[in-house]
Amino acid sequence: MILFNSDYTEGAHPRILERLMETNLEQTTGYGEDAYCEAAREAIRKVCDAPEADVHFLVGGTQANFTVISSALKPYQGVLCADTGHINVHETGAVEACGHKVLALPGKDGKITAEQIRNAHDLHWSDESHEHIAQPKMVYISHPTELGTLYTKGELEEIGRVCRECGLYLFLDGARLGYGLMAPGTDVTIADIAKICDVFYIGGTKIGALFGEAVVIMNPQLKPDFRYCIKQKGGMLAKGRLLGIQFLELFRDGLYFEIAKHAIDMAMILKEGLKEKGYSFFMDSVTNQQFIMIEDEKLEKIREKYGVTYQQRYDETHSVIRLCTSWATTEENVRSLLADL
Amino acid sequence: MILFNSDYTEGAHPRILERLMETNLEQTTGYGEDAYCEAAREAIRKVCDAPEADVHFLVGGTQANFTVISSALKPYQGVLCADTGHINVHETGAVEACGHKVLALPGKDGKITAEQIRNAHDLHWSDESHEHIAQPKMVYISHPTELGTLYTKGELEEIGRVCRECGLYLFLDGARLGYGLMAPGTDVTIADIAKICDVFYIGGTKIGALFGEAVVIMNPQLKPDFRYCIKQKGGMLAKGRLLGIQFLELFRDGLYFEIAKHAIDMAMILKEGLKEKGYSFFMDSVTNQQFIMIEDEKLEKIREKYGVTYQQRYDETHSVIRLCTSWATTEENVRSLLADL
Amino acid sequence: MILFNSDYTEGAHPRILERLMETNLEQTTGYGEDAYCEAAREAIRKVCDAPEADVHFLVGGTQANFTVISSALKPYQGVLCADTGHINVHETGAVEACGHKVLALPGKDGKITAEQIRNAHDLHWSDESHEHIAQPKMVYISHPTELGTLYTKGELEEIGRVCRECGLYLFLDGARLGYGLMAPGTDVTIADIAKICDVFYIGGTKIGALFGEAVVIMNPQLKPDFRYCIKQKGGMLAKGRLLGIQFLELFRDGLYFEIAKHAIDMAMILKEGLKEKGYSFFMDSVTNQQFIMIEDEKLEKIREKYGVTYQQRYDETHSVIRLCTSWATTEENVRSLLADL
Amino acid sequence: MILFNSDYTEGAHPRILERLMETNLEQTTGYGEDAYCEAAREAIRKVCDAPEADVHFLVGGTQANFTVISSALKPYQGVLCADTGHINVHETGAVEACGHKVLALPGKDGKITAEQIRNAHDLHWSDESHEHIAQPKMVYISHPTELGTLYTKGELEEIGRVCRECGLYLFLDGARLGYGLMAPGTDVTIADIAKICDVFYIGGTKIGALFGEAVVIMNPQLKPDFRYCIKQKGGMLAKGRLLGIQFLELFRDGLYFEIAKHAIDMAMILKEGLKEKGYSFFMDSVTNQQFIMIEDEKLEKIREKYGVTYQQRYDETHSVIRLCTSWATTEENVRSLLADL
Repeated sequence: MILFNSDYTEGAHPRILERLMETNLEQTTGYGEDAYCEAAREAIRKVCDAPEADVHFLVGGTQANFTVISSALKPYQGVLCADTGHINVHETGAVEACGHKVLALPGKDGKITAEQIRNAHDLHWSDESHEHIAQPKMVYISHPTELGTLYTKGELEEIGRVCRECGLYLFLDGARLGYGLMAPGTDVTIADIAKICDVFYIGGTKIGALFGEAVVIMNPQLKPDFRYCIKQKGGMLAKGRLLGIQFLELFRDGLYFEIAKHAIDMAMILKEGLKEKGYSFFMDSVTNQQFIMIEDEKLEKIREKYGVTYQQRYDETHSVIRLCTSWATTEENVRSLLADL
Repeated sequence: MILFNSDYTEGAHPRILERLMETNLEQTTGYGEDAYCEAAREAIRKVCDAPEADVHFLVGGTQANFTVISSALKPYQGVLCADTGHINVHETGAVEACGHKVLALPGKDGKITAEQIRNAHDLHWSDESHEHIAQPKMVYISHPTELGTLYTKGELEEIGRVCRECGLYLFLDGARLGYGLMAPGTDVTIADIAKICDVFYIGGTKIGALFGEAVVIMNPQLKPDFRYCIKQKGGMLAKGRLLGIQFLELFRDGLYFEIAKHAIDMAMILKEGLKEKGYSFFMDSVTNQQFIMIEDEKLEKIREKYGVTYQQRYDETHSVIRLCTSWATTEENVRSLLADL
Repeated sequence: MILFNSDYTEGAHPRILERLMETNLEQTTGYGEDAYCEAAREAIRKVCDAPEADVHFLVGGTQANFTVISSALKPYQGVLCADTGHINVHETGAVEACGHKVLALPGKDGKITAEQIRNAHDLHWSDESHEHIAQPKMVYISHPTELGTLYTKGELEEIGRVCRECGLYLFLDGARLGYGLMAPGTDVTIADIAKICDVFYIGGTKIGALFGEAVVIMNPQLKPDFRYCIKQKGGMLAKGRLLGIQFLELFRDGLYFEIAKHAIDMAMILKEGLKEKGYSFFMDSVTNQQFIMIEDEKLEKIREKYGVTYQQRYDETHSVIRLCTSWATTEENVRSLLADL
Repeated sequence: MILFNSDYTEGAHPRILERLMETNLEQTTGYGEDAYCEAAREAIRKVCDAPEADVHFLVGGTQANFTVISSALKPYQGVLCADTGHINVHETGAVEACGHKVLALPGKDGKITAEQIRNAHDLHWSDESHEHIAQPKMVYISHPTELGTLYTKGELEEIGRVCRECGLYLFLDGARLGYGLMAPGTDVTIADIAKICDVFYIGGTKIGALFGEAVVIMNPQLKPDFRYCIKQKGGMLAKGRLLGIQFLELFRDGLYFEIAKHAIDMAMILKEGLKEKGYSFFMDSVTNQQFIMIEDEKLEKIREKYGVTYQQRYDETHSVIRLCTSWATTEENVRSLLADL
């Protein structure tokens, strides 16, 4: 079986495992207070051009999402997001389990607009009964989105501007951030994201690490006591250095960007091949997740040899599936899939 | 000012105040363990034809909703409801504050269908990633709905059947139950509701009491330790007898139904009058809440003399407003409003 | 049966019921935004000599406690209190259900000291692992305490000073505040409490009202959006005016203090009588709760005619019981109890 | 610096890193549904002599604790534990953040007794106001305890018996389980623990793994939907196979027990040496954590070269410190520390 299900089907980039090997018997203090974590934090501040940022390493994306959100909101506040947002659909109600309502807005290809955000804000505050309604206080966006799409720099800036004007925190889920940054045609840099967002994270799990997400806090209001939140929510790894070592390696010599680029290259080969074969796309993705419509019979056959993610039914005889590439995908496997499709 | 904003603009039905006066200096034990509460429980069991029911008295509707829901669900389970459901829009995220996702379905005139419920259930369990999605375990419906509409007996039975087949608890919010039961043309009795639902409540606040909601638990699985839940969630009134005395009076000689009927009579005079005057209705309500479209200029003028609830914008020059009658509404005031509209 | 179990065995002071009668058919807006609530807020600001205070009316004490605490704390913060504190022992874990640890300190006769508070604060912040420990951020004290004892003005001032120095909010549970203020020998006024505390409440349920607690917020940091919290936690009474009317009457002509004084007078007759009869006291209470040791056999007999609260076992043959007087206690009943003891 | 602070100062046992290397580029499905996890589950069932057990892999101990506890309890239920229990003191209120009260009992050397548990249970249920008190429903014990002590098989069986009789779940925190099982003089086997407990976990983080705790659920009532809980609480590792590979290696050829034995051997050399040098022990520990009293001046000097954990003040001039050995501790370092002490 060759798996295109997701971008976390392999272990870690070999350079990361090597560093874990080399450092294995060194003794360090725990909980992210070691020198590797400090160096990794510094490397991330540098790549983000954000010397004042607080950087924290968490284990996974769901954990990063609910830890950030619950640390920022008061009990009666909620978080606006696209209806397709990961926190709204694929985290078993984790944000709600922390007490906060996810305020879903109808997304378009996984994205929401500055105008939608402003309208949601205005609608809330103009309601005579607004004290009876969960108060929007944060905006959650994913970049790339769960559907592989990207915001433009202009869109992000506009969202950032509206958030500031409305007193909303802007939180960007970057579980696949590298794939977004390396996508063809994007005009968004990681420094732009640091400038625009109040808090965001840089995903490691899906881009070369064994696991790990680097939360970058820009807004000083969100910084105090964040480590208490990490500990309470189960995200403070005893051997925190494992996260430091991995992110340090990812941001040494641009490894993170380089391997993300590889995944994008593979995705574009796949996309072009699919186009040539006449497949229709569920939406136009320039990142490592490609969504196509496929006949159910063909899907069944493909699944004998390839792993793919079932997204949803399209019509009576067709389904939408997701195909992912990653830093570890080989061109050989992509060509094989294309040949068999 | 004459208020048609809501059905809780006055105090209590005079008979209730009289009973509170008469019993005022009697000594009773607290927390709902007095003889008045026991008698009221028995009266409610009788009117519901449900000798095995557990009956508990809570103070308000939001409290009743989150206490019932959080007592029934496990942390990863959510509650299906219409997108217009009170728990989804007007309780400041109270259900989420107890940790549970509200799983909103697109309602039609405030109602959801058995088919929608089954589909939501099937969609969840057929998803390969269902463990990553909040699990539907309860269905919340309001009767009357927040838009004044009613389920038919057939619809309720069908919903009940689907819930049983799908292993979902059915919870009916009866904050305005009396108004539903006395509406023209309904074929639903309170005994039907007791038979169909796992748990429901009979609203007192909006129908003659100073305050109070009687939660009726039919499903034995939901009965154990419910008083712990009431206490923890702040709903266990020290002078619990106040609730017992009120509900006992409401269900003596059919007072509850009689005064609900009065509100419906007033609403029907209002509805007919509005029709005659050519007003359009936002939906067809047979209960004590009537929703009409009105020109903004006219609305401004009406509001000089009458209290009404602003529901939402209809178009550039029109709004939707809600007009409520109650057990306390006088025909004189209804006629006055009609004359001024 | 004559009940000395608690101070909430009767309804309300007759003047309150009369006011509810008189105002019953007036129409008002809901949720505490009516003129009675506003007037009651003003009356309370005046009696507290606190023109800047925010005043909110809630239904009960447990509700007031968890609403105030959860509105003030971040998820990782806890509340210091005496191990006998109501929030620690008699609220079914309501504070924890809102996510916060109750940090119990060993109390002496229901009280904690400024020194204990400072030590708890210092111990936390000097711990190398303080991020792994719930952070103390609020102090909860009851006045009178659950054991009927009182703080002196000097003790309260010292606690207030330490709280300010340590960055801790001071929250005073005044469920029985009136009984404390009217106790013989106390040097504490309600204005002192307003000056010293960040937030406190004035209990109505146990002193003349049908129900109701008036939360007084002094610290501006705790004021924003408190009504959202009330609504979310189920404390926003639809017919909010019921609370306004009651508190307005309680604070007109000093009724609140007058009836509290009556309860104290009755308690002192009881206390003196008990002393004369040779009973030992579990602690020296100058308020309306008296705790005595009693032989089990005698207790059994007394319980045939009187309601008392079983507090705890004292030794193999004796128990500790609580006897409460209230605004409604008659001297006749106190004399009868004394005669039978 | 040579660190004796904790048992997680190094990476992983070399055999584990080797296996991660060997399997690194294999493709597997995520979230613990791969063949390595399945094989590791089977290995653990075998070593526990528990073919019916459900085994789940979580990332860390705090996470394992709150996930297990919150999955088992209803909102109004609490968990009994020693006052020194990890969940009570070192998890930033994580259990409370899930809504549950930790019901601390005074421990003796970190342990609680069957009698204490029964008394707590009886005290609750005999209280006339038990509905106002958090209901004990689970018992949490650590083995070894946070103070390095161990239960005997007899003590565990007695605790298990009382729990069954009282309807309490028994949950054993085995973050250092291996060190307990290999301690001199213990009569407790891992199969005993599986037989006695409703749920427990086998710690990997502190015994050879990079990270990971294997939760073993014995009681069928606690099994359903546990994966939903893991996901919601942030414990479902995307690359779940990392946990499977590690635990599989730990339980191949008895590696887990062998390396735990090494840590114990090192601890006993340390303990004997300390005794010879006349140090007093804070308690008698037969596991890898040793607690001694030390003069403050000497401590300062030792800390120039060695990392140790400050436990608490002993008297004006002495402190209690903790010294840990682990699977990675060398005899050379132990001898060096002894020489310098």
